[in-house]
Amino acid sequence: PRRYRITLLPGDGIGPEVVSVAKDVLALAGSHEGIEFKFCEMPLGGTAIDNVGVPLPVETLNAAKESDAVLLGAIGGYKWDKNAKLLKPETGLLHLRRGLGVFANLRPAVVLPQLIGSSTLKMEVAEGVDLMVIRELTGGIYFGEPRGFGTNDKGEDVGFNTEVYSASEVDRIARVAFKVAQKRRGKLCSVDKANVLEASIFWRKRVDTIALEFPDVLLSHMYVDNAAMQLIREPRQFDTILTNNIFGDILSDEASMLTGSIGMLPSASISESGPGLFEPIHGSAPDIAGQDKANPLATILSAAMLLQYGLGEDNAAKRIEDAVIETLNKGFRTGDIHSSGMVLVGCKKMGEEVLKS
Amino acid sequence: PRRYRITLLPGDGIGPEVVSVAKDVLALAGSHEGIEFKFCEMPLGGTAIDNVGVPLPVETLNAAKESDAVLLGAIGGYKWDKNAKLLKPETGLLHLRRGLGVFANLRPAVVLPQLIGSSTLKMEVAEGVDLMVIRELTGGIYFGEPRGFGTNDKGEDVGFNTEVYSASEVDRIARVAFKVAQKRRGKLCSVDKANVLEASIFWRKRVDTIALEFPDVLLSHMYVDNAAMQLIREPRQFDTILTNNIFGDILSDEASMLTGSIGMLPSASISESGPGLFEPIHGSAPDIAGQDKANPLATILSAAMLLQYGLGEDNAAKRIEDAVIETLNKGFRTGDIHSSGMVLVGCKKMGEEVLKS
Ligand SMILES: CC(C)[C@H](C(=O)O)[C@@H](O)C(=O)O
Ligand SMILES: CC(C)[C@H](C(=O)O)[C@@H](O)C(=O)O
Repeated sequence: PRRYRITLLPGDGIGPEVVSVAKDVLALAGSHEGIEFKFCEMPLGGTAIDNVGVPLPVETLNAAKESDAVLLGAIGGYKWDKNAKLLKPETGLLHLRRGLGVFANLRPAVVLPQLIGSSTLKMEVAEGVDLMVIRELTGGIYFGEPRGFGTNDKGEDVGFNTEVYSASEVDRIARVAFKVAQKRRGKLCSVDKANVLEASIFWRKRVDTIALEFPDVLLSHMYVDNAAMQLIREPRQFDTILTNNIFGDILSDEASMLTGSIGMLPSASISESGPGLFEPIHGSAPDIAGQDKANPLATILSAAMLLQYGLGEDNAAKRIEDAVIETLNKGFRTGDIHSSGMVLVGCKKMGEEVLKS
Repeated sequence: PRRYRITLLPGDGIGPEVVSVAKDVLALAGSHEGIEFKFCEMPLGGTAIDNVGVPLPVETLNAAKESDAVLLGAIGGYKWDKNAKLLKPETGLLHLRRGLGVFANLRPAVVLPQLIGSSTLKMEVAEGVDLMVIRELTGGIYFGEPRGFGTNDKGEDVGFNTEVYSASEVDRIARVAFKVAQKRRGKLCSVDKANVLEASIFWRKRVDTIALEFPDVLLSHMYVDNAAMQLIREPRQFDTILTNNIFGDILSDEASMLTGSIGMLPSASISESGPGLFEPIHGSAPDIAGQDKANPLATILSAAMLLQYGLGEDNAAKRIEDAVIETLNKGFRTGDIHSSGMVLVGCKKMGEEVLKS
């Protein structure tokens, strides 16, 4: 059998519940395809702060680096919100992304016919939405230097950050985006603010250059403010969206909310050659943690992305996706996506149903 | 009579059509309240580039500065899109904002019962939305230094910008926001990315400090990615939103699209003591320019904001707002907000109907 080492990072809040369920689904899908997994669970986020004193213990980063793929639950919670920056769960996540070099964050937003009622958009607008946001994840204003606090030339206190992109940073994320667009409907929309920002003018120039390598992809450019509008006005116009770290943070969350069911949405973060990081886009939901109420499907679908984008095991990935659709077709719903006539189930039971499907 | 000097900046595309109509409405509303206007029309944007060689002629800026308020149509168009930065219409607008020191941009997004069908949101979600985005307009990454193009320590080409806020910049916009919230429903949500950016940590700290001056306003903080989601999920939760220049650019456009009728939405940009700048939030729509198809209501409502926020003439402002509502109640609609059973009219005719109402 083919063997892979998977690092599990359950994290905080509902993270452990959803990862435990997704792990079982991953193992079963693998076994049907002659794949054997070795799982290794490591602390990250608030749990790591409480137990080890830092949000990203060096053992966790090393384990992640040495494995074939990483599956993450969720991190964060009220408890650590007032911590100093280096002792925040979020900082652990940012350092993990950077440590793994996962510069490309793929976030699909698909409106499933079974769940279209959850969208706050009118049915005729939400229907058929199927887009993918490709967000640059290890550069830009998230990591740019200089940053910090200081005084300006008038002697006033200031806080500042640097938005910066180099040619190779834009080129590599652009290539990922063009390749993804090729496998989708062949349309790529690069989002920037080139009418105001030099970093965006530079971004646009590099994307135009890389476009020459992909003559079969139809490239367009859009300003970020317009993109924020168009996502609501006519989301079906989008196939693949490419954008920087901060715009991607905002737009991918906006796009995900169009589906009305962020408990369903997975993400993949991939690097040049090392292991990828796969996680649901929802947060740690501390208010429902430990109550068996969480929707595990986003993490289960993240496991499918792990198989597809992380290990190239497309068949096993397809198995998981099909099982999720079948489970929905059978009418099983967790509380976040429940509607009348459907069968309300908890996190564990939903996992069992996916395993059966 | 009270006398005011108004600088009109019709700009490009549909700008001249909508400003011409709004000017007549302004004059009539004023005359009912014993106000006399002296109008002075000046070039800005693409028109200024074509005629004078620069997007913001010094005569235009001086006229604007010397007047009591400025009414702007719209700027920009395909024709000037490839121009170098200093010769772009947008650059003229940015320099005008900065030149007038209009640091506070007020952008209301109201779902009118008459137009709720235009929203792509479900009726029960869109119903009753009435929020105001207060965007910092003359600081942050739009103007921060250093900015430009260069090489990094690996010798690679880069593009970069600086997001920076000083204490006085945050304090003054926060005070405007708290005051606006006081006059509205008393709730202020400050949006930032304080879990990642130092500029946001600084912003949040200053906003918390200014909050002490306004104990009657309920202040909350929200991360920008979450705000982008919440605006779609449950827009009624918001009353007044305070945010920085770039987040405000994105969120105010998103918020405006919730109403489904950006042809209806005005904005006000105000300074410490000088003249304010009032403009519709829509663009110059070059594709329908000169065809008498534009919706003048956003500019007419901007004239109402000019009266209220620019001149303190609340009664005259109210007259215009009431006339717009009455015109809608009579069933008159331009193409962008037309629906079956309503009377389709052009830009001029819509203006005449508002004048009659
Ligand atoms: C938790 C936070 C640091 C993170 C980000 O901003 O990248 C999150 O919002 C995300 O999108 O994964
Ligand atoms: C035209 C552009 C420079 C401007 C901005 O980004 O501020 C516009 O989008 C706006 O919101 O008024």
